[in-house]
Amino acid sequence: MTQDRLSEKRFVSEQGLTVAPFRAVDSLADLEAAVAALGRPSVLKTRRFGYDGKGQVKILPETDLAEAYEAIGGSPAVLEGFVTFAREVSVVAARGADGSFAAFDLCENEHRDHILAFTRIPAQVSAATEAAAIEAARRIGAALGYVGVFAVEMFVVGEGAGESVVVNEIAPRVHNSGHWTSEGAQTSQFHQHVRAVCGFPLGSAARRGRVEMENLIGDAALRWRDLLAEPGAHLHLYGKREARPGRKMGHVTRVVPEQG
Amino acid sequence: MTQDRLSEKRFVSEQGLTVAPFRAVDSLADLEAAVAALGRPSVLKTRRFGYDGKGQVKILPETDLAEAYEAIGGSPAVLEGFVTFAREVSVVAARGADGSFAAFDLCENEHRDHILAFTRIPAQVSAATEAAAIEAARRIGAALGYVGVFAVEMFVVGEGAGESVVVNEIAPRVHNSGHWTSEGAQTSQFHQHVRAVCGFPLGSAARRGRVEMENLIGDAALRWRDLLAEPGAHLHLYGKREARPGRKMGHVTRVVPEQG
Repeated sequence: MTQDRLSEKRFVSEQGLTVAPFRAVDSLADLEAAVAALGRPSVLKTRRFGYDGKGQVKILPETDLAEAYEAIGGSPAVLEGFVTFAREVSVVAARGADGSFAAFDLCENEHRDHILAFTRIPAQVSAATEAAAIEAARRIGAALGYVGVFAVEMFVVGEGAGESVVVNEIAPRVHNSGHWTSEGAQTSQFHQHVRAVCGFPLGSAARRGRVEMENLIGDAALRWRDLLAEPGAHLHLYGKREARPGRKMGHVTRVVPEQG
Repeated sequence: MTQDRLSEKRFVSEQGLTVAPFRAVDSLADLEAAVAALGRPSVLKTRRFGYDGKGQVKILPETDLAEAYEAIGGSPAVLEGFVTFAREVSVVAARGADGSFAAFDLCENEHRDHILAFTRIPAQVSAATEAAAIEAARRIGAALGYVGVFAVEMFVVGEGAGESVVVNEIAPRVHNSGHWTSEGAQTSQFHQHVRAVCGFPLGSAARRGRVEMENLIGDAALRWRDLLAEPGAHLHLYGKREARPGRKMGHVTRVVPEQG
């Protein structure tokens, strides 16, 4: 279900959660009608096989719709209304076969060129917004009957008392924005996933301090020796031979203990 | 050098550090002379191949020396004077090829039946004693020209201002009393060893809280499901098929964050 953006958005909406406005697009005529309804800017995305910004094209005031439809190969698609968000966040959580649920603290994510660049914890949102985000993830996991670790990516919109979350995407797996848990939480997301799928009790998701995870993209991985020398930094390299632009080569996690 | 108890004790003494009084024993006559010099109780240990209490026999008031010498197979041996100690501790530390040195906090060890049962950190010794213990390890590592992680086991004798350490044994490797570092320190002893031998900067040895490591010996490993359910407990099982008495089957590390 989560492999298809359209069925995913319908499912999330059915859980009473907010998603960006959307329209199914199966033809150029559909696209024209959808843009008339949702306006510009908006984003045309293939229903399947999209990640890290692939399989999508932004519909700007000057965009020719026939060219945009051509750009995604005329695949079954969805048009999404543009959401003006203050922050991007994600909930990384585990659900056990017995319905037990444990969420790590809300992750704040910074993307560059459509690729996750940084995750920082705690997220700079209100306690109420964090609770609402985690409740949204809990509800999604329960409705899916999901077992294991999963992530829900969200946008934070509005501010003050009007702050709320818009669900963007479900990732039914351990997630890049949860990599910090290996050193930053009592239980890593990988270990938690094994606990969940083996039917063991879920581990503590408590955080060990203020945490920043930085993805090492392309040549950034060449800084590995400096990163090894940085106190409190934990380096992970994925063993990829070639550092191509846009390629995730590793990540580094920084943990700063919080005074109690 | 550390495979031979006699050369090890001579080496440690030459560094100006305290060891238990000892005598080389290569014959029953040697043993008789050594017991006359060091008294009873004392401990007869083979020079090589001893660990976890194997290859040693205690010389009590009633012990027949010929039988004791027979018990260790007449191997080259050493007689050690008995040390009345308040605590057993160990320093687990790393030394880099460039002479850099990083010690984890002093470990306090509790043995049962000659096998390590618990390691607790911080050790209940004075700051001066902890500093002296770490300095002893630093000096040993430097004199050996050692590169990598090693441990030095010590006894704490005396009390108050008279508290001091007696070096018992050098373990030129990662050590059971350092297993807690996987979750209890910023850098695990295993990762630290790789940093040292690869010539990378040593990682932070800072501790994450109060820590207890419990070895799971024999049937204790059958408690694994309860241990998985214990908040803040980290379970490690070694994949050994059979839980025999005295066999180290795994360990569990408990970390309790300290308030700042």
